Amino acid sequence: MKENASADGGRRAPNPKRRSARAERAILDAASELIVEVGFARMTMEAIAARARVGKQTIYRWWPSKSAVVLDVFTHLTGEKAGQPLPDTGDVATDLKTVLRATVDEFTTPAMDRTARAFTAEIQHDTELAVQIGERLVSPGTEVYKERLRSAVDAGQVRADADLELAVELLTGPFQKRWLLRTAPLTHTYAEDLVDMVMCALRP
Amino acid sequence: MKENASADGGRRAPNPKRRSARAERAILDAASELIVEVGFARMTMEAIAARARVGKQTIYRWWPSKSAVVLDVFTHLTGEKAGQPLPDTGDVATDLKTVLRATVDEFTTPAMDRTARAFTAEIQHDTELAVQIGERLVSPGTEVYKERLRSAVDAGQVRADADLELAVELLTGPFQKRWLLRTAPLTHTYAEDLVDMVMCALRP
Repeated sequence: MKENASADGGRRAPNPKRRSARAERAILDAASELIVEVGFARMTMEAIAARARVGKQTIYRWWPSKSAVVLDVFTHLTGEKAGQPLPDTGDVATDLKTVLRATVDEFTTPAMDRTARAFTAEIQHDTELAVQIGERLVSPGTEVYKERLRSAVDAGQVRADADLELAVELLTGPFQKRWLLRTAPLTHTYAEDLVDMVMCALRP
Repeated sequence: MKENASADGGRRAPNPKRRSARAERAILDAASELIVEVGFARMTMEAIAARARVGKQTIYRWWPSKSAVVLDVFTHLTGEKAGQPLPDTGDVATDLKTVLRATVDEFTTPAMDRTARAFTAEIQHDTELAVQIGERLVSPGTEVYKERLRSAVDAGQVRADADLELAVELLTGPFQKRWLLRTAPLTHTYAEDLVDMVMCALRP
């Protein structure tokens, strides 16, 4: 932030909006780093503020709690895509494989892994946070899968009587279980085999 | 234990083995109750000892840590069945539905729900505990499902080229995701629909 301030050379009037966006970004980056380094439980608002070089009050101006900050970290890591439609090349199996391979890549990066595990732990006793995660991440994520499957029904690639809610669980549940319990590695081949088997259940 | 001691009337020599089994049971019961009442994080070895009316040293004689105690609670709740074969009536869909309906009943009881959530939270950062859970509960659980599916392959109810490891994940992963993220209620109907859809993927 200091570098940017000097790059302005003092010639322009400060732009509060841009400064806010910069502080917000610094706070989310700091929280993202700290959750990987020390974990959710040991991470404090003080440490986030110190790392982001902002006052603690600046954080509390935008977020009421540590959970709220980390929910936004998580949303930035995954959720910006949460409401975005899945690819539609015309072949549903190809598209689902593309999406699940990308999910493998996401969940095998340390930042995502640590953040998602911190959240998984938190929502086991924090039901309010669980509801927020559900509304902001899980439901939109399920909805875009269902949307893609509906289009596959129209294209005659998925049978019309298939329960699409359940179909999405078949695509995402096994993946999540493997990640959660670390029973076996998450690989691209796994993602592809999973889609192939689920498609056996869904084809007309 | 006092009641039992007086029931002996002092006439018989104490049986250390039986006394040990009784203390062990009291400790596991106490831990099981406390995890429901206060949760894993706030449960202490002192509280377990007080509730079980034993000295803390008695607990440490058998278990090195709180995690170890709760792992045994969990094993008693679910794991006694973990290595037991699944029912085999000759119809694999019927048997899988029986098993998953029973799992629904298990996971919708407060003791099991709280204990499993406490563990789910713990193993996100305690990888040693995760390994133990994997070895003592997850792997044996997966193995008995695979065993039942192998018998279904022999009976011509499951195609011979099906990846049985993946098939088990399809049967258990969606269930676990729904429970973990509380996305929808776990019901007997759900268990049956899940089996029906997975069987679509597995039939020859």
